[in-house]
Amino acid sequence: MRVFGLAGSLRKGSYNRALLRAAVRLAPEELQILVFDRLREIPPYNADVEAEGDPEPVAALKAAIRAADALLVVTPEYNYGVPGVLKNAIDWASRPPGHSVLDGKPAALMGATPGRTGTARAQLALRQSFVFTGTPVLPGPEVLVAEAHQKFGEDGTLRDEATQKHVRELLERLVRWTERLRPK
Amino acid sequence: MRVFGLAGSLRKGSYNRALLRAAVRLAPEELQILVFDRLREIPPYNADVEAEGDPEPVAALKAAIRAADALLVVTPEYNYGVPGVLKNAIDWASRPPGHSVLDGKPAALMGATPGRTGTARAQLALRQSFVFTGTPVLPGPEVLVAEAHQKFGEDGTLRDEATQKHVRELLERLVRWTERLRPK
Amino acid sequence: MRVFGLAGSLRKGSYNRALLRAAVRLAPEELQILVFDRLREIPPYNADVEAEGDPEPVAALKAAIRAADALLVVTPEYNYGVPGVLKNAIDWASRPPGHSVLDGKPAALMGATPGRTGTARAQLALRQSFVFTGTPVLPGPEVLVAEAHQKFGEDGTLRDEATQKHVRELLERLVRWTERLRPK
Amino acid sequence: MRVFGLAGSLRKGSYNRALLRAAVRLAPEELQILVFDRLREIPPYNADVEAEGDPEPVAALKAAIRAADALLVVTPEYNYGVPGVLKNAIDWASRPPGHSVLDGKPAALMGATPGRTGTARAQLALRQSFVFTGTPVLPGPEVLVAEAHQKFGEDGTLRDEATQKHVRELLERLVRWTERLRPK
Repeated sequence: MRVFGLAGSLRKGSYNRALLRAAVRLAPEELQILVFDRLREIPPYNADVEAEGDPEPVAALKAAIRAADALLVVTPEYNYGVPGVLKNAIDWASRPPGHSVLDGKPAALMGATPGRTGTARAQLALRQSFVFTGTPVLPGPEVLVAEAHQKFGEDGTLRDEATQKHVRELLERLVRWTERLRPK
Repeated sequence: MRVFGLAGSLRKGSYNRALLRAAVRLAPEELQILVFDRLREIPPYNADVEAEGDPEPVAALKAAIRAADALLVVTPEYNYGVPGVLKNAIDWASRPPGHSVLDGKPAALMGATPGRTGTARAQLALRQSFVFTGTPVLPGPEVLVAEAHQKFGEDGTLRDEATQKHVRELLERLVRWTERLRPK
Repeated sequence: MRVFGLAGSLRKGSYNRALLRAAVRLAPEELQILVFDRLREIPPYNADVEAEGDPEPVAALKAAIRAADALLVVTPEYNYGVPGVLKNAIDWASRPPGHSVLDGKPAALMGATPGRTGTARAQLALRQSFVFTGTPVLPGPEVLVAEAHQKFGEDGTLRDEATQKHVRELLERLVRWTERLRPK
Repeated sequence: MRVFGLAGSLRKGSYNRALLRAAVRLAPEELQILVFDRLREIPPYNADVEAEGDPEPVAALKAAIRAADALLVVTPEYNYGVPGVLKNAIDWASRPPGHSVLDGKPAALMGATPGRTGTARAQLALRQSFVFTGTPVLPGPEVLVAEAHQKFGEDGTLRDEATQKHVRELLERLVRWTERLRPK
């Protein structure tokens, strides 16, 4: 099972990017997470530009999602919402409506913050966008990594064992979710 | 009273940009809307870039907000949310936390869609971000321009009289809202 | 396939109750909708009362959900949210956490309003609650019945053919959604 | 300044009711919080019942809100949303639309949970309802009391000093918010 992995931050030392790297290592054997690392190249969404054809990084984004069995999106929380940078990538991927690569693709969410609420609000905002795109997000208990500075080492390694366990469980549930949703 | 006006779309023929132009013309005498027209130049938010100083278009964005008495934000709805392009500008403007130009600045929202719900969901998502930034958004009845293709002429002029009236009323209420919130 | 049907209004002439009755008639052959008609008997949720055992109407509510293969919830929109009366029933049904009858139960949503947005906001609020309960709600296009007074006859019959088609499609998709999610 | 205080739980030992009692004691001298303690008597909202006149507890609720200069609502979080019991009271108070006692009434929110997110999601859901009712809620930093069991004594007294400080600051800001919004 191939999973498209995307973290919604451009900062080098981002906890969310570190959390995605941790997920790559913690993934169960049957699941391979392929990290999309070109978020910074995605241009601002503009329907006039789109009308002339997807820019190359957007085409690469769509191809990577299309090739995957499922999505793992790791979102920071900016201003009680999804970072504009991440939402912009989703805006491109959602096009054209009715034929989007996001339609029907199983997904799971995670997120990390230095604060106490661990992206609770941003994850709900992201789920709302995935209602529109017809992307079935795993319901139920969420991976909310609060006080991230205490859970990652200086080298960006996830050290907190409880969080490691939560990530592993989420990935195992994503495997089952994807299998159940697979068209028969 | 000077109002910072921002429409969250880059498309030339955007209904939301047309709605903002209509607001400029419909504004009551005591209110001047200054349209910020450099949204496309705002780079993707990146804390590493920010650490080296705000890029010039971001500095211009913040200066324009700081100089205004109030905000008028016109948001499209992409994927049941705020367009990434618009959210990204808000993400920059919200920095640094505690000293943001958005803190305490009165605001009003509008939006237009070809569909029937007229950005109802995107406006709520935007209000949620403005809770974090401490930006007091005018509560109450919203300007939701549904079926926008029937309300604007081919030249982008707002022709629908009921919508013109709603826009004018919103601006009059924004004037009173801003006056009431003005520190004494 | 047995579907638990619940409309979130107590008003006799409610469009949402009429919409649920229409769904009963429009359901594909393999799907039987059993309407739960005791919403008015559900007492206000109170953990002290719960500690002494579920009141009989609550026990009946839980039993009806447990016996069903899927849920169809028809929600009005009150104050941009789920009616308190409906949310209260969900609050009871969600208990105890971890062993709720809502956990894992496939669901679909509908709603009707006299206004133009057709419960768009209430349905998103309801989806948010179903994230907590682990209830997988059908993603994608929603049945939003706007201007309901024009779509129902005086006897409460759904007359609008486009809406009939949307309801039927939703129910067909609910059948497939439930089949896909069935544990193997 | 008189503040209508309402906690959205019926449980005797509720942390949210305890938090409201703490607010009563911590209030600055110029602010008096009058606790509405008849939530359990508010019947389920039913437009047919309303058509025959507000039941007495509803009339009392509306009168108490009308007489107050501002609102303080203390909300638990049930299923990522506002408790049905609390929302039901708001549904009654919001009637009739256009002439509601909630219209224009300044408000502040608080909430407590045993968990880590401290009603972050419920408060946003409540703000959304207050957009519809035209109730200007204090924007900005929120009082989210997480891990409530560690912050209250067995007798229900708020012992945590940091939380006491947050509550006091919120009330001071509510005073200023209400003064600024007072019609001139």
